[in-house]
Amino acid sequence: MRSLRGSDGLAVTRADIEAAGRRLAGVAVDTPLLESPLLNTQLGFRLLVKAEPLQLTGSFKFRGAYNAIAQFDDDARQAGVIAYSSGNHAQGVAAAASLLGVPATIVMPADAPRIKIDGTRAWGAEVVLYDRAGEDREAIGSRIARDTGATLVRPYDEPQVIAGQATIGLEIVRQAGNLGVRPAAVVAPCGGGGLTSGIAFALSDAWPDTQVFTAEPEGFDDTARSLAAGHRVEAQPGGTSICDALLAPMPGELTYPILKGLGVRGLTVSEDSIRHAMGQTFRHFKLVVEPGGAAALAAVLDGRSGWGDAPVVCICSGGNVDPLLYADILRSYAAK
Amino acid sequence: MRSLRGSDGLAVTRADIEAAGRRLAGVAVDTPLLESPLLNTQLGFRLLVKAEPLQLTGSFKFRGAYNAIAQFDDDARQAGVIAYSSGNHAQGVAAAASLLGVPATIVMPADAPRIKIDGTRAWGAEVVLYDRAGEDREAIGSRIARDTGATLVRPYDEPQVIAGQATIGLEIVRQAGNLGVRPAAVVAPCGGGGLTSGIAFALSDAWPDTQVFTAEPEGFDDTARSLAAGHRVEAQPGGTSICDALLAPMPGELTYPILKGLGVRGLTVSEDSIRHAMGQTFRHFKLVVEPGGAAALAAVLDGRSGWGDAPVVCICSGGNVDPLLYADILRSYAAK
Repeated sequence: MRSLRGSDGLAVTRADIEAAGRRLAGVAVDTPLLESPLLNTQLGFRLLVKAEPLQLTGSFKFRGAYNAIAQFDDDARQAGVIAYSSGNHAQGVAAAASLLGVPATIVMPADAPRIKIDGTRAWGAEVVLYDRAGEDREAIGSRIARDTGATLVRPYDEPQVIAGQATIGLEIVRQAGNLGVRPAAVVAPCGGGGLTSGIAFALSDAWPDTQVFTAEPEGFDDTARSLAAGHRVEAQPGGTSICDALLAPMPGELTYPILKGLGVRGLTVSEDSIRHAMGQTFRHFKLVVEPGGAAALAAVLDGRSGWGDAPVVCICSGGNVDPLLYADILRSYAAK
Repeated sequence: MRSLRGSDGLAVTRADIEAAGRRLAGVAVDTPLLESPLLNTQLGFRLLVKAEPLQLTGSFKFRGAYNAIAQFDDDARQAGVIAYSSGNHAQGVAAAASLLGVPATIVMPADAPRIKIDGTRAWGAEVVLYDRAGEDREAIGSRIARDTGATLVRPYDEPQVIAGQATIGLEIVRQAGNLGVRPAAVVAPCGGGGLTSGIAFALSDAWPDTQVFTAEPEGFDDTARSLAAGHRVEAQPGGTSICDALLAPMPGELTYPILKGLGVRGLTVSEDSIRHAMGQTFRHFKLVVEPGGAAALAAVLDGRSGWGDAPVVCICSGGNVDPLLYADILRSYAAK
């Protein structure tokens, strides 16, 4: 993996990431790296799981949202923030805005999980629902931003959002270092690439030989296809997935050059593997993980990170899953 | 609450607890104190949840087991360890024995949750099943100990087990201190009293004004009755509970004097409250908690810790629940 120092025309710099780390200290949860000796024995290597479901709002998205909104000037704070999101960025923005005293409007698909819509409203945000099939969330967001003067914080193509998500990488370097571990691979779920580009950037100095992987569901493998093709391509149309958090149709304009520049590689996983991974996090880690949050673990359990007996770090990125869906997945898991 | 310094003829001393802390450092997980700002707003006070499901083996029991077995001499290590347990102490002893290279035999009720029996075997222990209604686990344990020369490690009436569980109290003092919090109340689930007596002792110096509570299911409220009566009494016969980890019929000989001496008070909770608390830990903390592990949170959510707007610490003590039972509880939770 190449080492980048913010001198390659990329959206973020190392200074951005370090500043994000200072901004989030004592505000975001320094989530633990979990480990199961029994699972390690089964796998034949040491697996460390970064538990972002334990983050404020139940996903990593709080980090980027807070880092972005905390930098609004007084006028921008007063005019408010607007975001469009399938749910985790929505809750992250709503919570960050609430903590910073900024009014928030969130544009969400009407079919987003109930737990995510409720969570967003609980943080005091105004929620505007739209039809995922027939309406354009970016157009709705831009219109409201124009009408109200609110600032749009994009879910991934936003430098300060990428820098906020990158603080996970800083924490992993410190936490794994305390355990004497330098992983051969780091695997993270990927939608638009904000999380994976941030982490890859944050790790590139400390661990230049560590391979970073994105993990996507088979129906939305745009990042894997793009990295293989060497340029941004869309996922095949008509794909569906249980991973409501990973439905971005194409890697971001800002995130893709970081992923490509750092030699990140793309993995895809089946829906069955994702369900199994959710069951395994229940059993071995006592951690609730949502489908999209389990994609990287699914890839690791499938043996896709493939580094023999070398240690692997995997990010479980969120845990906002509706209880009935989770119950169904546990029932299938128990039946095996 | 009185402050004890190990000079009152109690089973443990402060030196025991501090030595346990050193023994477990880097071996047991320093589990996080979790917090949900949304839940805090609903409750009207700040609630910090000590997340012991994230402990090795999925419950706090690993702490006491490891602290006890680590002090075996060479002969005792070779002869092995024996324990009887409904499941969490079983897994704790099996894991500690495995890490320390000591053979383990565990006597478990045949109706213990499958996930606990499987977990114990996965750690390499020999499991002997018995009939909870018709056989006496202590007699079986003593017989095997006599036949094999193995050392019996009791689940709670064992000084070094109490000292190990007490390390949770040391961690809470440090972690809450880092947040600038001194809680008015600390609430922990209670079976035989190993966890609650250890925590009460560990907190007594640092926080003499903090009220410690035990939390028990209504059918097994022996500790609450004993503390009210001023001497050890049994629960009413015939009680049943979903809390398989809290079915001890009477407080321990060693644990009860500590609870009484420190002014600990007993709370009881309904099965419905426990199921609701499990749903709330799913929603707000993304943490899997077993029925017995949720008893203290149930008491807090019922408003039983009752200290107005002062902060409360609650221990979620374990997360080893069978997936089908958990699925059922989530379905009822979602239906409300």
